[in-house]
Order: sequence, then structure tokens, then C-alpha cells
Amino acid sequence: MHWVKILGVAVGAAALLGLGIILGHFAIPKASDPLAPNTSDAQDLDLAILDLVMGQLDASRIRENLRELSKEPHVASSPRDEALVRLLLERWQDTETGLDAAKTYEYTVLLSFPRQEQPNIVEVVSPSGTVFHSFQPGEKNLTGEQVGPNVLQPYAAYAPPGTPKGLLVYANRGSEEDFKELETRGIKLEGTIALTRYGGVGRGAKAINAAKHGVVGVLVYTDPGDINDGKSLPTETFPNSWGLPPSGVERGSYYEYFGDPLTPYLPARPSTFRLDLNNISGFPPIPAQPIGFEDAKDLLCNLTGDSAPDSWQGKLGCDYKLGPGFKQDGSFPADSEVKVSVHNTLELRPSSNVLGIIQGAVEPDRYVIYGNHRDSWVHGAVDPSSGTAVLLEISRVLGTLLKKGTWRPRRSIIFASWGAEEFGLIGSTEFTEEFLSKLQERTVAYINVDISVFANATLRAQGTPPVQSVIFSATKEISAPGPSSLSIYDNWLRYTNRSSPVYGLVPSLGTLGAGSDYASFIHFLGISSMDLAYTYDKGKTSARIYPTYHTAFDTFDYMEKFLDPGFSSHQAVARTAGSVLLRLSDSRFLPLNVSDYSETLHSFLEAAQKDLGTLLEKHNISLSPLVTAVEKFKTAAAALVRRISTLQKNSPNPLQVRMVNDQLMLLERAFLNPRAFPENRYYSHVLWAPNTASAPTFPGLANACARAQDANSGSEAWAEVQRQLSIVVMALEGAAATLEPVDDL
Amino acid sequence: MHWVKILGVAVGAAALLGLGIILGHFAIPKASDPLAPNTSDAQDLDLAILDLVMGQLDASRIRENLRELSKEPHVASSPRDEALVRLLLERWQDTETGLDAAKTYEYTVLLSFPRQEQPNIVEVVSPSGTVFHSFQPGEKNLTGEQVGPNVLQPYAAYAPPGTPKGLLVYANRGSEEDFKELETRGIKLEGTIALTRYGGVGRGAKAINAAKHGVVGVLVYTDPGDINDGKSLPTETFPNSWGLPPSGVERGSYYEYFGDPLTPYLPARPSTFRLDLNNISGFPPIPAQPIGFEDAKDLLCNLTGDSAPDSWQGKLGCDYKLGPGFKQDGSFPADSEVKVSVHNTLELRPSSNVLGIIQGAVEPDRYVIYGNHRDSWVHGAVDPSSGTAVLLEISRVLGTLLKKGTWRPRRSIIFASWGAEEFGLIGSTEFTEEFLSKLQERTVAYINVDISVFANATLRAQGTPPVQSVIFSATKEISAPGPSSLSIYDNWLRYTNRSSPVYGLVPSLGTLGAGSDYASFIHFLGISSMDLAYTYDKGKTSARIYPTYHTAFDTFDYMEKFLDPGFSSHQAVARTAGSVLLRLSDSRFLPLNVSDYSETLHSFLEAAQKDLGTLLEKHNISLSPLVTAVEKFKTAAAALVRRISTLQKNSPNPLQVRMVNDQLMLLERAFLNPRAFPENRYYSHVLWAPNTASAPTFPGLANACARAQDANSGSEAWAEVQRQLSIVVMALEGAAATLEPVDDL
Repeated sequence: MHWVKILGVAVGAAALLGLGIILGHFAIPKASDPLAPNTSDAQDLDLAILDLVMGQLDASRIRENLRELSKEPHVASSPRDEALVRLLLERWQDTETGLDAAKTYEYTVLLSFPRQEQPNIVEVVSPSGTVFHSFQPGEKNLTGEQVGPNVLQPYAAYAPPGTPKGLLVYANRGSEEDFKELETRGIKLEGTIALTRYGGVGRGAKAINAAKHGVVGVLVYTDPGDINDGKSLPTETFPNSWGLPPSGVERGSYYEYFGDPLTPYLPARPSTFRLDLNNISGFPPIPAQPIGFEDAKDLLCNLTGDSAPDSWQGKLGCDYKLGPGFKQDGSFPADSEVKVSVHNTLELRPSSNVLGIIQGAVEPDRYVIYGNHRDSWVHGAVDPSSGTAVLLEISRVLGTLLKKGTWRPRRSIIFASWGAEEFGLIGSTEFTEEFLSKLQERTVAYINVDISVFANATLRAQGTPPVQSVIFSATKEISAPGPSSLSIYDNWLRYTNRSSPVYGLVPSLGTLGAGSDYASFIHFLGISSMDLAYTYDKGKTSARIYPTYHTAFDTFDYMEKFLDPGFSSHQAVARTAGSVLLRLSDSRFLPLNVSDYSETLHSFLEAAQKDLGTLLEKHNISLSPLVTAVEKFKTAAAALVRRISTLQKNSPNPLQVRMVNDQLMLLERAFLNPRAFPENRYYSHVLWAPNTASAPTFPGLANACARAQDANSGSEAWAEVQRQLSIVVMALEGAAATLEPVDDL
Repeated sequence: MHWVKILGVAVGAAALLGLGIILGHFAIPKASDPLAPNTSDAQDLDLAILDLVMGQLDASRIRENLRELSKEPHVASSPRDEALVRLLLERWQDTETGLDAAKTYEYTVLLSFPRQEQPNIVEVVSPSGTVFHSFQPGEKNLTGEQVGPNVLQPYAAYAPPGTPKGLLVYANRGSEEDFKELETRGIKLEGTIALTRYGGVGRGAKAINAAKHGVVGVLVYTDPGDINDGKSLPTETFPNSWGLPPSGVERGSYYEYFGDPLTPYLPARPSTFRLDLNNISGFPPIPAQPIGFEDAKDLLCNLTGDSAPDSWQGKLGCDYKLGPGFKQDGSFPADSEVKVSVHNTLELRPSSNVLGIIQGAVEPDRYVIYGNHRDSWVHGAVDPSSGTAVLLEISRVLGTLLKKGTWRPRRSIIFASWGAEEFGLIGSTEFTEEFLSKLQERTVAYINVDISVFANATLRAQGTPPVQSVIFSATKEISAPGPSSLSIYDNWLRYTNRSSPVYGLVPSLGTLGAGSDYASFIHFLGISSMDLAYTYDKGKTSARIYPTYHTAFDTFDYMEKFLDPGFSSHQAVARTAGSVLLRLSDSRFLPLNVSDYSETLHSFLEAAQKDLGTLLEKHNISLSPLVTAVEKFKTAAAALVRRISTLQKNSPNPLQVRMVNDQLMLLERAFLNPRAFPENRYYSHVLWAPNTASAPTFPGLANACARAQDANSGSEAWAEVQRQLSIVVMALEGAAATLEPVDDL
């Protein structure tokens, strides 16, 4: 470099000094210029602001939010759902506590509803059709909130209408193995109605599996053994405890995929191409209906036939038989059949997302997205309003700092209230379809807080490996609710932990399935995602989930009395999510530790070697390219972490920071391959697609092995195993290449 | 903002001044630290450096490069191809004229070769097999360069081996319409050998179309009417003119797709999964062989049957008949058949790309890639060595400036010498598969210069709309070769122009098909790409391409005597490509004008309205969502261009520049949809996939309409039209969203 250039640099830097002063002057927030840029490219997480935010997140305001949000039923596209859209807009557009901007995005989506004028019904009938007994699948009005025009009666969303009848069989959880077991035992399933219990497999899968075996209708109930630790009496259940009342029924979507069923991969705008209803895949093929366990008991405890296997027995207080049909001298004539009348309708309905933004001061084109769905099945105090109550409190606190001019994040923060999640994550999925490119290019991370409080024992976090570090950092600095003086982190460590080869004993981060709106962010867009909540002590209850899940008993009083009196767990989640959000939006260097993927890859590799190694060897398939790829990734990730650490000490310029941050942000994208699993709609992330293996491992490889197990070496099935192996090797090596120094060949 | 913060800024800026001095000091290039970062984030295109580069690009050095590169045949994976790999490495690793680093990337790919010990042959035989005449499809040794162990005999790469025989028919260009025409005229094609001429449809398509009609073997020749402006005598052709000699034969790949045939979508590393040979699609289904027009004349001018239509007639000096079979009293007995003996073999062979990098001073993680293939069919002086000769001269000039410490680009420059292009763009495709994520995230543009000089009349440029502006800017500043005093731009304007609604009369930029290594960059990765060359005056010749294309007559002398005596056109291309490269690598604001896409979209829309509007209306499909989407794009692009222009005047900070540059760089990516045309391998760009429509328009929509034309409104075919319409609307709206202000909702 010539001396002339060095002089130029000096002059440039001096100019920068002057420029800084000028910018500094204009950066004083004015009413007319709320977006005066932050003058410092080096803006970093401000611990004083973080403390301020932690201190201002208020349990009583969360409580008030929850009361408002859950005071009426607000199923997707209902008038109350629309009213909540307006409430969110008002909050986010408030001049003193609101955000920079807020807006709604409406989609026209296919929903499924029961008919108010022709309720679904389950009857015990004679072979000729005479009705002996009739079950109304409604819930008892125990607290005054279980009736009314807006309380949606229990149903299986997207189950087709129909009035099948047949002998009743008991099919445990409705898995493929369960139906095979019945057939092995000589039970003819053709034309039967199958009674199944929730759990084990997804809702829709029960009907799909049943139909494959000739079953014509499916009933689904929640066994007290699965949800109430065995308790089933009215005196032992809500409103006397947190337990599910005998009449409580879990509603839910029986659609197998997610997103609007008519517009896969396309945003459901009014003019968008829609599939013909006959071409939709993933809907239950036969009528299905959920019922309460008091009704299930009448049916199940009157069955004839052999006793069900031990693992199929529940806590209804009788020996569960398999059927088919009813026993002699029971409540119903022995030749009685069960008739299931389902009158669900499909409707194209408008559903809105509400988005609110705080524009970033330094990197407005980097987004941290924080979202939850808005729609519930009934009042939805727990699901999802406990999450929305927290979301509103975080946005209030940050909005207030923003409007006062105290703070503006380094990166943009986008708050989202998704519509129609309960029907299949529809609002969030349509959003990711519509803004695919923009979101993939710019989103740093997605934070989901759906149900924020299942119970008040411990934090539960799910996410991809890079978010572990930021959750750990946040939770180490926040006190756990309750009498102990532990941090949220230390309390969490007591409940769920694992031994990490790198860190020693740490809390376990769960993996992300497709249980809430993070699904399309992680699986379709490849954005590092997480889901945060407070939950129960698994040592104290074996409940599948909080007992009133998706029932008309999920109310404000239920939350206040049984899950989180005092709302301190809500506050703990608000502080955790708020701290994670601020760390992601404000830290100069993104707090995503890509090196934490190495541990996951090693464990996936070990599981593959252990569980698939022998089989693969038999077919002359070597895992050594995968071993090499994992090592390459590990080396590249560790080196990047070291480079960042050096950079942090050496006054890096803004572009140097941006470059490594881009490497961190985009790592997750490198694991996407839209051609890897075309049969699994939206699943493009080669590490987190649905996995049939017992131990967590590379899903494409494991699934292909499972399918090929009994095939010959030269078969298509084994070619697919090899293709899947190459796909994951390519993804890992490609990902490693993105972590290497940007100007290395 | 508080005063405390402003003070902080001042201190920071002062620190920056100090830092600048320190950095300035260390930035003096030392042998041990060739990568001292440029200290100014504001580094911009330096016109003095640009002038220096333009002046140093030397015609005589390009000539010397070409002599060296073309002195021996160097088909992919041959020893001479490997020697050229070493030559490139040496040049790029030279301590005085080389780059920062250079490296080879080897793939194991499936190539197809003729057998040296059992040459392909075409014979005229009796029905019982007695040979009357035998054609050796070799070329006459006119200049001493057409024989030798390294001269690959003419063949149709990937055509299967076989020895079909049958009556000969003439099938014009071998299009589907041509074979239909023969059948309409009552000619039974079953069991025939079809003689076709090059042009009209792709090589492989001739065999695929033929096989559909029962044809068992295909011959392909180059008609003097298509290549020599009718001239066919030895005295009128090379070495006496640029014309194709009578024995000249165009070799070429008959594979329908691109990339290694065994590893679609996967990099062809040794351990990569490979398709079973029986599962490969896209190979010619029947034996095929190219021949010279002197042999074709013997066959064609002896055919019997009706005269071929006027548009099928060529310049072999006889009336072209259709066959089948030979005429009475001709050169062969009238019942003679033609036997085609093809003995090609498929071989897994190593093929290398050579990559060289100049690391960027300011944004090393932004790549401008400049490439050409290295492999030829024979000596390949024109194709591809004329491009490589230019590439080496540009890299020499830039390397010299780099090693002297005079210059380092703002962004990284990657030079690439691709392997096995002639077999189907294999080297470049495997590279894009291997480094997919890294390249998509970081590549600003891809510049391809394959054949750099077809002839010396005018520039010819192909590319996507955003590269138009940088090519125009570059060519306006460079003198055209030859006696005129015009710029390359003004000279170009005389030959190929169009009236732009925005700019008035401008040179026409061609569109990118899949004719060279840009294909996977634009279609698979969505990277703005271009292809540059000097070419002939279409008013003076109707040749399809330069006449010795893919023959053993494409030699250094051919180039020097007939295409570019003095190498001034090579120099013009070197200056154009060099200037475009520097502008892309060094301009602070990327010189990609995204607004130029609006004009293309408008013309696509008009063509769709004009050519498809009535048909769509008949099926109740409205184009209005597309009209809206095009308008949205136009508005967003124009607004971004205005914002950039304002930003340029207002001392933007480095991150503000980076943000808009990212919008410009990534626009092309927003047009990708890997699910749009799964049947068209690698084609994901919704605007540039192969299009069957007569006028350029949205390919998915046009192709779907063509397929649906005769189907009923409710059919699958019309559903696909609607799906394609939604796909392109979604892409345009998604692209528009990426151009909007980054913190807008």
C-alpha cells in the first residue's frame, strides 16, 4: 500500500469523526424522525437495558392480558378471533407503548367445523338401527363457561362427514401395530368402529391406520391413566383439581400435514390456485369423533371378547376387552353396534396474522421473529393465550422503551400473532410461503412461545443446537419463580439434564417436531428456532399434557387456580423469552453457537453406527463418508468459534462482524435440501425431518433403512438408502464449507 | 439519544482514526502478510486501476496463450487436459503474476468415448448384410492436425452402442414435427435409419424423437446451407476459407440434461451415490452417429421417394428426397440398407475444475466468479481455448497488480477453469452442487466467457436483466477493434439492437439457455449470469455457428487466419470481461440494475396476454394477479433504485451499503422455486426455464398452456396452468418484497 493511501485512510477516519458528530446530533430522537439511525455500528447488548426490561416484565399485567384474551372462546376466524386481531393492532400501534408499525396479513384458508344445527353424535344401535343409547359429545357446564353459542362442540377437525356403524373394537392408541395386533388375534376389523385413546400416534394417524384395516369409523378418548394420573371422579377433577373432568373432550386437527390444505407451498391469497377437494391428501379417510372418558367408559367397559394386553389397559376401572361388540348382560344388547354421526363441514374462511415491527438501528435487515398463535379451540387460556399474554407484555415493555427513545435494537424485531394454528399451523405456514426469500435471507432466529405455562415446576426449551447457548446465557441470569433462590437455569438443570461431552452436565434442550408455529420456520425455511415454556415436574405426574388441553375447561380460572397462581411462571417465561430476544436482537456478535451442532452430529452418527451399522455393512454401505463429513463440520465450526473470539478482541470493523454473523445466521439454511424428502411436505431440513428410528439420528438415512430392511441389496430401496446417505454427507460438507473462512478455496 | 452516547461516538471515531493509522501501517504489503486488509470500507471502483488494466490486456499474450492451449487435442480427462490443469495451477500460483490461491477440485464423472480399436462406421449394405460401401466418419488430414492418437474420431457422446440397419429416410432436422410430417406422407418409419441435419432441435432430441417413431438409428450431418452459406467444395472451404471442409464432422454430447448423468443434484465425489446405468434418463435411446456432408451427400443424393418439402432442402447440390431407401440406378443397389455401427463406451473418469481466488479487501465474503471450461473435442482453439486464453490474460494482469501491492479488489474474485463441459457442463454443475449454500449466499454474479471470438464483427452478450447496465457501462468506455473509432457499445448497437421503453435504442442482450457453464449458476442457483463473446455479422453469413465448431479443423491457424487475425477481438473481449469483472468486484454499490427486470417482466406479460389471453379467458383464468404482481415488482424496483441514488449522495455507512447490495445480489435468488418444474432437472428459476412458446414469456405458464390446450376446463392439465400462474405470481411478489425497504412490514 502506498503512503498516499494511508493518508487517505487518516483523512477518511477524521471525516468519520466529523460524520459521527453530525450523525450523533441528528440521532437525538425527534417526534418526526423516530428512525434516526443509531450512530454506532458497534452497538452491542446493553446490560443496563436488559436489566431494565427484566425488571419491568410484570406478572400482574400478564395476568390481565390473559383474562382479556381468554374471556371468550376465539376459534380461528370467529368474531372474537377478529376482535383479538384488533386488540393486537391497538396494542402495537399505541403511541406510548406500541411498536414502529403493525399490520395484518389475511389469508383465505380451508377450515373444518362441526354443524351447530346438526351436532355430531355417537349412538348404540341395534343391527336394524334402533337407538338404545345416545352420547352427546359435549362437555358438562361445570363453571358456566362450557355452554354458549361460541363454545365449539368437540369434533375431529377435517374428519369427513358420514354415519358409519358397526361392531365396536378397542384398538388401544390406533397405531399400525395396534391394528396388526388385533388382526393377529383373529379379530375381523372390516366394518367395525374402533375406539382408541389419545397418545402414541398423531390424531389423524389413528383414522388413517384404522381405514387401512377396513375400520369404518373411529372414536378417540382421553384415558384417565394418560392424563389424570388415574383419577376419574368428578370430585377428583376440575374444578376440584387440575384433572380432566369425565366429560372433557380433546378437540384437535386430524389433518396429517400442516399449512392450508388447499394451497401447499403457495400462500393462500384469494387468487391463489387451490387443489380440488378430491385431490387433498392428509385428511382422515373415515369419520372420526373424540369423546369424553365417561362416555368411553360406557362403551369400553361393556365390550366382549378377549382381554386387551396389559399395556393397552387404562384407568377406567374395568378390564379392557377387545370386542368386537358388547358383552352379554352388559348395558347394551349384545348384538348392538355403535353408530358415529359426523356432520363436519369444510369452509373457506379468512384468517389473519398480525405482525408488529421494531426497526433495527444498525442492521434493520436482520430479523429476530417472536411469535405465537392467537386462535384457540374454546377459551384457550393455557393454549395459546398464556403465550400471547407474555408476548403482549414483552412488546409493551420494549415498545415503551422505544417510544421514550431509551432504546432501539441493533436488529429488527418482528412480533407475530398467527391465525388458525389449531387447524394445522396455517397462519405461520402461509406467511413463510409468502415471504420465503425475504425471511430466509434475513431471519436470525425464530422464538416461539405458544403455551407459556403448562405448570410451574421448570423451564422446558426445545430448539436447534445453535440456540442452546443463548438460552443458557439468559436463564443463568434470571431467578426461578418460587421459594428457591436458584436461577431458572439451575432449577431447570435439576429436572431435565444430560451429560454433554463438551460442557458436562447441562439442561437438555428438546428437539422441534411440528407441534407449533416454529414448524415451517425450521423445517421449510431452515431458520434456527426455539420454543419456550414453563412446565410440570415429570416426577409428580405422568400426564401427557396439562389435562384440560383443547377442552372447554381450559379457562382463566383453571390457569390461575391450578397452573400458575400469582403468574410467576408466566413472568419467568417472559423474562427468559425477553432476554433471549434482546440478546439475539442486540448482541453485536450473534449469540448462536454453531459449534453446538457438532455434539448433535456426533450423537446422530453414533446412533447410526450402533443401530444401522450392521445392516448397512451387510449391504456393503460404508458410513465412512459420513464420519468424514461430521469431522469436517466439527473442525470448521470450532475454527469459526475461535476466529470470532479473536475478532472480538481486535476491534473488528462493521463488515467483519457482519460477515461472521452471516455465517452464523445462515448455517441452518445449509442443511436444507428441498429434494431430500419430497413425500414429507415442507420438511427440507435434512437433520430434523420426522424420524422413525428409536434413537435420534439422521432421519433420511434411518427412514430409508427402515424401508429397505427386508429388500435385496440391488433394490430401489437400497439405492434410496445410498442416496439418503449422500444427501446428508453433501449437506454436512456444504454446511462445513459455509463455516470455513469466507475467502478460502 | 443521550449526550453520553454522542460522546461515546466521538471517542469511538477518534479511536477509529487511531485504528486507521495502525491499520494503514500494517497494510503495507509484506511478504509474510499478503492479505493486509484494505482499511477503507468505502473502497470503490478506482478508474485509474481500471484504465491500467484495460491498457495492460495484451493481444499478443492472448495469442501466445491460445497457441499453448490449443497445440494438442485436450478432451476432458485426457493426459493433455490434465497437463492444462497443471498449466493453470502454475499460472495462478506464480509468485509474480498469480493469485492469492489456486486449487483443483476433482470429480469422478461418467463420460462417453468412441473405441479406438473398433471405430464407429456407417455402411451401405444389402438386405443380407453384404457391404457395398463403407464410410469412415473421420476427417481428412488437411493441415496435419486431423490425425494422431489424441484426435478423437467423430461420435455422438452418450449414444448407445449397437449396429442397427434399415432403409434410409431423410428426416430434415429430426424434430417431432419432422417425423410427423414423414408419417403424414405415408412413410413407414419403423425399422429405418434416419438421416438428419444439425440445427433446429438439440442433438439428443433428434434421437429421442426418432426412436418414438420406431426409427432404429440416426445419422446427423451439417448441411453446407446451414454452415457454409452454401459453399461445399474443398477449394471453397478450410484451409482455403473459414468454411467447413466436406469431411468435417461436428462432435457433441447427445445427453439431454446437464451435469454428471449418474449423480443428479449430488456432487460426483468418489463415494457419492450413483444411479444404476439402467435408471439414467436423457441418453439417446438408439445409436446415433454424426458424419461429414461429403458422406451425407452420397447417401442423401441417392435416396428415392418424394421430394422433401422446400424448407427441408439444403445445399448438397441435388434434390433431397425422403426415401425410404435408395433410388434405381444410383450409386447403390436400390434395395440397399444403411447400417450404423456404434461402439461407444461409458467410462467413469476423473475430471478437475481449477479454481483461483483473489481475496477481497473489504467484503471477502462476496464473490464475483469468472469461468470457462478447459476441455475441448479436439484442439479446440475457438471452443473453448479462445475463452481460456482471455481468462489467463485477465488473471495475469490482475495477479500482477495484486502481487505488486497496487490493488486488491473490494470483493473476492474467483477464476474457474471447468472440466468436462463438452459432455454436459459437468464440472461447473458438480461444483454448484457441492458448494450450493456457500455460492448462493455470497455470489454477486457469474461471468462466463466460453468461445471468446466467433468472429470479429461485434460484441454479443447474453445475460439476465440486472447485468445489462454493467455491460453497457463497460462497453461504452472501450474502443471497438478495427478501423472505426466507435466504442464496443456503439459498434454493438449497429448490429443488434432493440427499442427499450426506458432507454430508447440499446444493444440487445440475449437470454441464457444452457449452452455453457453459466447454466447451473443461473438456473440452479439463481445467480445473475452473463456470457460474453465477439461474433460475426449476421448480415454477411447465415452460418449456425463458426463452421469448424467441434471438428478437428478448429485449430490455432484457423483462428488466426480466419476469425481474429491480430487478436484484436480477443483483446476487446478481454477488456469487456475485465471491465465488467472489476466493476462488479470493486464498485462500492453493486452495478446491478434490478429495475431492468421490470422491462423484461412487462414484455413477458404482454406476450402472455397476447398469446395466451384468449385461451385462458376461455377457461376462466384471469391474468390480473400477474398484472398486479408485475406492477408491484416495478414499483419496488424503481423505489430501490431511487433509495440507492439518495444513499450514494449521503455518506452511507458500510452496513447501509451492504444492505442494499444484498438486496441487489439476492434478487435473482427470489425467482427460484425448486418445486416449480421438477421434470426439468436443475431448472428452478421461474423466469428462464425452457419455454415452448414462440415469444419469450413466463415459461411455466406457457408450457402448461401448451400442454392443456386441448384438455377440458376441469382437467389436471388446466389445474397445472393455474398452479403455474400462482407460482410465478408468488415469485414476483416475493421478489418485490425483497426489494422493499428492509424494515417495512
